[in-house]
Amino acid sequence: MSKTKLWGGRFSKDTNALVDAFNASIDYDKRLYHEDIRGSIAHAHMLAKVGIISQEDAAAIEKGLKEILAEIQAGKFDFSTQLEDIHMNIEAALTDKIGDAGARLHTARSRNDQVALDMHMYMKREVTEIMDLLIAFEEALLTMAEKHLKTLMPGYTHLQRAQPITFAHHMLAYFNMLRRDFRRLQGVWDGADIMPLGAGAVAGTTLPIDRFQVAEELHFSQVYGNSMDAVSDRDYVLEFLSFASLLMMHLSRLSEEMCLWSSTEFGFIELDDAFATGSSMMPQKKNPDISELVRGKTGRVYGHLTALLTTLKGLPLAYNKDLQEDKEGFFDAIDTVKFSLQVYRDMILSTKVNKERMAEAVHKDYSNATDLADYLVRKGMPFRKAHAVVGKAVAKAIAEHKLLGQLTLEEYKEMSPLFEKDLLECLKPENCVAARTSYGGPAPQNNAKQVELGKEAVEEQKKVLEELKKRI
Amino acid sequence: MSKTKLWGGRFSKDTNALVDAFNASIDYDKRLYHEDIRGSIAHAHMLAKVGIISQEDAAAIEKGLKEILAEIQAGKFDFSTQLEDIHMNIEAALTDKIGDAGARLHTARSRNDQVALDMHMYMKREVTEIMDLLIAFEEALLTMAEKHLKTLMPGYTHLQRAQPITFAHHMLAYFNMLRRDFRRLQGVWDGADIMPLGAGAVAGTTLPIDRFQVAEELHFSQVYGNSMDAVSDRDYVLEFLSFASLLMMHLSRLSEEMCLWSSTEFGFIELDDAFATGSSMMPQKKNPDISELVRGKTGRVYGHLTALLTTLKGLPLAYNKDLQEDKEGFFDAIDTVKFSLQVYRDMILSTKVNKERMAEAVHKDYSNATDLADYLVRKGMPFRKAHAVVGKAVAKAIAEHKLLGQLTLEEYKEMSPLFEKDLLECLKPENCVAARTSYGGPAPQNNAKQVELGKEAVEEQKKVLEELKKRI
Amino acid sequence: MSKTKLWGGRFSKDTNALVDAFNASIDYDKRLYHEDIRGSIAHAHMLAKVGIISQEDAAAIEKGLKEILAEIQAGKFDFSTQLEDIHMNIEAALTDKIGDAGARLHTARSRNDQVALDMHMYMKREVTEIMDLLIAFEEALLTMAEKHLKTLMPGYTHLQRAQPITFAHHMLAYFNMLRRDFRRLQGVWDGADIMPLGAGAVAGTTLPIDRFQVAEELHFSQVYGNSMDAVSDRDYVLEFLSFASLLMMHLSRLSEEMCLWSSTEFGFIELDDAFATGSSMMPQKKNPDISELVRGKTGRVYGHLTALLTTLKGLPLAYNKDLQEDKEGFFDAIDTVKFSLQVYRDMILSTKVNKERMAEAVHKDYSNATDLADYLVRKGMPFRKAHAVVGKAVAKAIAEHKLLGQLTLEEYKEMSPLFEKDLLECLKPENCVAARTSYGGPAPQNNAKQVELGKEAVEEQKKVLEELKKRI
Amino acid sequence: MSKTKLWGGRFSKDTNALVDAFNASIDYDKRLYHEDIRGSIAHAHMLAKVGIISQEDAAAIEKGLKEILAEIQAGKFDFSTQLEDIHMNIEAALTDKIGDAGARLHTARSRNDQVALDMHMYMKREVTEIMDLLIAFEEALLTMAEKHLKTLMPGYTHLQRAQPITFAHHMLAYFNMLRRDFRRLQGVWDGADIMPLGAGAVAGTTLPIDRFQVAEELHFSQVYGNSMDAVSDRDYVLEFLSFASLLMMHLSRLSEEMCLWSSTEFGFIELDDAFATGSSMMPQKKNPDISELVRGKTGRVYGHLTALLTTLKGLPLAYNKDLQEDKEGFFDAIDTVKFSLQVYRDMILSTKVNKERMAEAVHKDYSNATDLADYLVRKGMPFRKAHAVVGKAVAKAIAEHKLLGQLTLEEYKEMSPLFEKDLLECLKPENCVAARTSYGGPAPQNNAKQVELGKEAVEEQKKVLEELKKRI
Repeated sequence: MSKTKLWGGRFSKDTNALVDAFNASIDYDKRLYHEDIRGSIAHAHMLAKVGIISQEDAAAIEKGLKEILAEIQAGKFDFSTQLEDIHMNIEAALTDKIGDAGARLHTARSRNDQVALDMHMYMKREVTEIMDLLIAFEEALLTMAEKHLKTLMPGYTHLQRAQPITFAHHMLAYFNMLRRDFRRLQGVWDGADIMPLGAGAVAGTTLPIDRFQVAEELHFSQVYGNSMDAVSDRDYVLEFLSFASLLMMHLSRLSEEMCLWSSTEFGFIELDDAFATGSSMMPQKKNPDISELVRGKTGRVYGHLTALLTTLKGLPLAYNKDLQEDKEGFFDAIDTVKFSLQVYRDMILSTKVNKERMAEAVHKDYSNATDLADYLVRKGMPFRKAHAVVGKAVAKAIAEHKLLGQLTLEEYKEMSPLFEKDLLECLKPENCVAARTSYGGPAPQNNAKQVELGKEAVEEQKKVLEELKKRI
Repeated sequence: MSKTKLWGGRFSKDTNALVDAFNASIDYDKRLYHEDIRGSIAHAHMLAKVGIISQEDAAAIEKGLKEILAEIQAGKFDFSTQLEDIHMNIEAALTDKIGDAGARLHTARSRNDQVALDMHMYMKREVTEIMDLLIAFEEALLTMAEKHLKTLMPGYTHLQRAQPITFAHHMLAYFNMLRRDFRRLQGVWDGADIMPLGAGAVAGTTLPIDRFQVAEELHFSQVYGNSMDAVSDRDYVLEFLSFASLLMMHLSRLSEEMCLWSSTEFGFIELDDAFATGSSMMPQKKNPDISELVRGKTGRVYGHLTALLTTLKGLPLAYNKDLQEDKEGFFDAIDTVKFSLQVYRDMILSTKVNKERMAEAVHKDYSNATDLADYLVRKGMPFRKAHAVVGKAVAKAIAEHKLLGQLTLEEYKEMSPLFEKDLLECLKPENCVAARTSYGGPAPQNNAKQVELGKEAVEEQKKVLEELKKRI
Repeated sequence: MSKTKLWGGRFSKDTNALVDAFNASIDYDKRLYHEDIRGSIAHAHMLAKVGIISQEDAAAIEKGLKEILAEIQAGKFDFSTQLEDIHMNIEAALTDKIGDAGARLHTARSRNDQVALDMHMYMKREVTEIMDLLIAFEEALLTMAEKHLKTLMPGYTHLQRAQPITFAHHMLAYFNMLRRDFRRLQGVWDGADIMPLGAGAVAGTTLPIDRFQVAEELHFSQVYGNSMDAVSDRDYVLEFLSFASLLMMHLSRLSEEMCLWSSTEFGFIELDDAFATGSSMMPQKKNPDISELVRGKTGRVYGHLTALLTTLKGLPLAYNKDLQEDKEGFFDAIDTVKFSLQVYRDMILSTKVNKERMAEAVHKDYSNATDLADYLVRKGMPFRKAHAVVGKAVAKAIAEHKLLGQLTLEEYKEMSPLFEKDLLECLKPENCVAARTSYGGPAPQNNAKQVELGKEAVEEQKKVLEELKKRI
Repeated sequence: MSKTKLWGGRFSKDTNALVDAFNASIDYDKRLYHEDIRGSIAHAHMLAKVGIISQEDAAAIEKGLKEILAEIQAGKFDFSTQLEDIHMNIEAALTDKIGDAGARLHTARSRNDQVALDMHMYMKREVTEIMDLLIAFEEALLTMAEKHLKTLMPGYTHLQRAQPITFAHHMLAYFNMLRRDFRRLQGVWDGADIMPLGAGAVAGTTLPIDRFQVAEELHFSQVYGNSMDAVSDRDYVLEFLSFASLLMMHLSRLSEEMCLWSSTEFGFIELDDAFATGSSMMPQKKNPDISELVRGKTGRVYGHLTALLTTLKGLPLAYNKDLQEDKEGFFDAIDTVKFSLQVYRDMILSTKVNKERMAEAVHKDYSNATDLADYLVRKGMPFRKAHAVVGKAVAKAIAEHKLLGQLTLEEYKEMSPLFEKDLLECLKPENCVAARTSYGGPAPQNNAKQVELGKEAVEEQKKVLEELKKRI
């Protein structure tokens, strides 16, 4: 008989050493120690309440587990690979401490539902921590927007200057993306807030457990209604990885822009020295490493999503060992998201915006051409014709190395008699922006209102978060 | 000047023929014709209401567009690659029909916000159609569960027989997955139900449009608050692809099981002839092609998710031509999901369940070992010790080529004096299942209740769907 | 009995209509018609040679198939979904034409090995076509390099100007990537150049076939040595998709640069009007759509790779219907790669390079700082100290809004006595570049040599390709 | 001025602590220490040879680096996060030891080309180690094949029994996949065997270095011909990840089969106790964890491929910090592949094959139906007609709950007068297999030959590997 494994009863040999190493998850699942202990205490409380174990045993279990918790937090606990995972490490230490009572803890549960419980609890806690960081970053974007309601800059499509906007408008675009990320993160919570313990290995138990009691103690609002589903469900991890992929996608877009803007060619921003790095060979360099890393790490998070989707594809019910692969990528995605949000917030608040350079860009270009077309439309010309007239004006200006404002009124009149003296006003970028008062447009008063609405939305998010924090 | 392009004003040559072919999206975006026309009519109504165009023009536009709609539906409309996309095809046809009024339609919008509008409307419609199919499949699973509340079968972990369950229990596991899919699909709706028109190319417009009027006519509950975000947001497509990937993952698991169950070795089910195919070389074959295809097509949907995530990674704001790549994979994922749900529902309802074969499997195995351990626990033995005792019993039985029920009471008593006569009852699979009455367990009365709860949940979903259908 | 299916012998009902639609592959596998017919003719020749069918039957089959080929090429062949795939469509037409002899064609083969043969042949042909396009694009890059051996431009790291290089150097970087792509494409050929026919459905055949004869007629250099492997191997498709993903990755990087360079901020290139497009709303725009689309389509090709990897994951041997999913993504990847290479070649050759703008960029920056450090190293200072000295010089220059060449010799001497009059020469960008004569560096004579080596390499590739064309 | 960074010359503040943590790669790139030191020694040798540093300095550098190597190997080296990466850690320690000479080491190189060199060297070493493991696993498969040349088992398509094969045939299918993996691994070597050092940060150097000397000392057969390509090329990492994904895909298929075969339903194999694990709740379980984990870890490797493809998409030349993301996934993929190959080899050699159970499966099924069709074909019936006749025979047998061998000759004659007495012989599975002598078929003498060819191929691989080992 295998002497070293708790499950070794029917085995005639020990497992291969390589197999142990391959199977063991303790290196990364020890991160779940707090949840594992809290979950076990709740389980013991319930076992005692329904009479499966004695109140004395439950008390001994709780005391022993709390000691183990303190040891782990103090860095005094020796994790053993031989004991495979966090559950076995803690249970073995508990039995060492309290004997038979410890051997009763695993009654009416299996590692399959135990690890599921740990992961659900862990996810709920991380959701609230990430919400905190998301909100802080949203507020940073609102702060920047508020400061730059009138800071002109070119709006781009196809990386070509298209129409004048403001830096506030650009920041608010990202704020809106993050609001959607917050909504999705609430969906992740909903997927995680279901209590799996009591599902056993696959088919529940014949013992008279009370799963709703455990759910209540651990603040879960639902209990899995099917034991097979409970042990094999990884939807909530996938939902998190989908959320994280979208968030990183948004950050990769902002990162791309931060890199562009801090290039010599754009020169729109200057990073604070605390958020840039130099070169070991080229002393003049000031590199936007953070933005590059966040953009690069987007790949990593997408990769974790692909990985888990692949792992789950085609798995028969219920638990399969493949499911152990749900953790490392998930943990790494959490770390990546938290790091990215935190550092980005600090970086963006300390970034210097070169207003003059942006303004110069807006004034020296043809991005007011649409306004010229709108001018003609307001005078009654069908849009498609206006578009064609302005197309010729732009072509003429480019050919003569002039800006639109440098053509004469006579030249304009030759192109269309509808042009009049007031056209020059409409060509000034600040007027172009100020006139874009339609809802969602970049006019300063619009965005001042959007900032207000944004702040209200963030207050709502904070209330949601306060509620969730009570339920972790 | 380019003669063939509406945007050709400043260009001195025609575009390269290969470029035209590469750029053109009409082959696949013509699928959006209905939304494009409906959106344009709403846009025209609004332009007239705020006085940008006359009521006569608006009426002419509506009439013209409705004629075009009828032509397309009758298969009489010639789509032209030269006109690039569905928007240009329809606008050109409209201008041919009604002249100047047609040339006024594109006032205060751009193709960037126009295509975004079409996609949002299209998504909303498809969400409701997929909800219909999801619900129908959920009901099929409930039907099967209700029929098989007492149909014993082995529950597996690691594809090893673990504990006895019922076919109902297995079906209900999938039902629960699909309920989560429905919840996520509601999230997709929320992401799609925001109105982008009026964002223009990137920065809104100087014309006095009323975006909320368009939103109302088209039943949108929100309007994008930032024009840059409105034209570059593809979150809702990614959310759909994430939803679709999870759904297909679920179906891939069920497919794997259908393949296993219809193998000679398992022999648990027999597919109806209408849902199986034969071999061109081996006349005896009856292949579960549908399940295999659905499992295989999971890859396709994952691939579309990867594709769009990749495309969006690192794109600067706002619109870039890369975004045109949002359609083909999305459309294909919709088709795949709808096909899979529809065919699976019909297939599963017509599948013959071999109760005898399943029952035989359950009776000839060791999957009642946990019940034996629970037996000892109920008599006071700590679980870990009970586990070890039963481990020896299993080892002994296997060595002697017996089942657990074939060891004698004396033999059991040698292993533990706690064993008594009643142990044989507890070893019967039907009793094992009947005793698993803890919430979420497979006992027949449990699952009868779960079926009831499931039906109620489906009724709720139907109400949700009715509401959404009013808003497409 | 099913009346409509060739494999319907043991079936008592027809398949469900939805199943037929879902199963049918004719919509996309008809692309294989040429290979299917050529492969069947070779099969018939072999069957006759070994005496399984008569020479008369073989002649009738060949004649019938050639007629069908002509009909397909003339667009006169009706493909039927009911007949599922290209194999059944052609075989049914053949049997209609020639009766019993047609019914003998499928002897000693299965659709499993037949479709594998078609795919292998198709891949070999496409490899040669893509090689042609790769070579043409490589030559375009060499042409551009040769023209711009002395065209100065900034070399970037972190999108920050780092050191002066030339446009030739930049083009040659891409040329080197493409050379590696060509090597990988040869690997794809090796994976495809193995003959699967005769593997049957899974286990070969009891009939006395001669697989090497078929291989010889169809110019295959190897024959699969294991029938199960032959029908389930899709490695060569994955190798193609890996090749295609890397190639598209390279093109996505070039595309990103084309977009940057054609922005107003960089202004390094101007696209020919034939390879750019305009805006429906902003008449001044000239958008680098091709580059954006190629960059965007990178996602699509990555997605196809992910899709097939997913589909194959965990499939038991040998043939499973999942494998039918190997085609659509593969075909689309081929089209995407061919389109991208072809259009990029034409676009790059017609692109106008703004030498003055690039030279100006190089002259107005600090990208000569490394040369200053090398200057000190040549005078004996340890590199790390030289790096620190130059760091201070750059800081001083930036603080005084000067370039490095605008500090005085006295100021330099204060920083290090090693500085002498000749330092000004070493700061001129053209000298910086000219001095980088180490192998792989941007000095014009270096790159002239690299262009020569590149042309020789391309000549070698052409010879390889000539040989492969004889073997398709 | 930043006091802590080697590149801090022009910076006025220290970097943010979070930025340091985010930027630092020492936690994982320390794995490259051996290559980093060996590369630096070769660099120093070259600098001395061309006269950039003195022979004394080179000797001091070599001595110092060898001491550091010994310290690291002895576990006595303190790695510092503050020093960011392995390069800076080692260089700082060196300068501590030997002063100015250490500060000269980084002359004419940058971290960009230095890390590229390390990675290329590391890859070459890992390629040879993985080749060793691949070969050992191939040999294990040949061993199993040789033992089971006559061990009958069903061959499956669609997981339905199709035709009888042997266990040897099945093992040889995997052997053939691994041979292709070996070929691809040689391609990985080719991509890695190019020397990047001397490319500097992006544009080489003005100092008179000799890159071919470094290449010779480090056994590289080529030198990058373009400095920008040298620092930004990650093709070889992607090629490795593509190779690893295909290999894992193959192993995932074998794993799926190992899981199936060790299920109670199949019962074809029994894993050695050393390679299986038990259950904490169900004492009777013997789980194929290794196969499940390998199948699950396939996702992880696919994910790393997706991640790096994503990271590289759209990056402008040359070095960007994003490229630092090339390591963790790559290292993890190496570990996963090595672990999987090693454990699988040991597991498969110790697996017990249940010949009787397999033989029983083959004898109790209809998988000889094709042989019956071939029988009729040999008597002159067109294949399609034979197929239909046998289809009816199978349908009749199934309806009467008989096997094909249990129908009477009279019954057969009613279906076709071509049937004669000898048909019973052709229905015996051992005869079905023995008659499949066509090349690639499962006849025992065929596979004996394939084993011989396989051994020869492995000997060739060993020769290749010997050569490569001389070049790491």
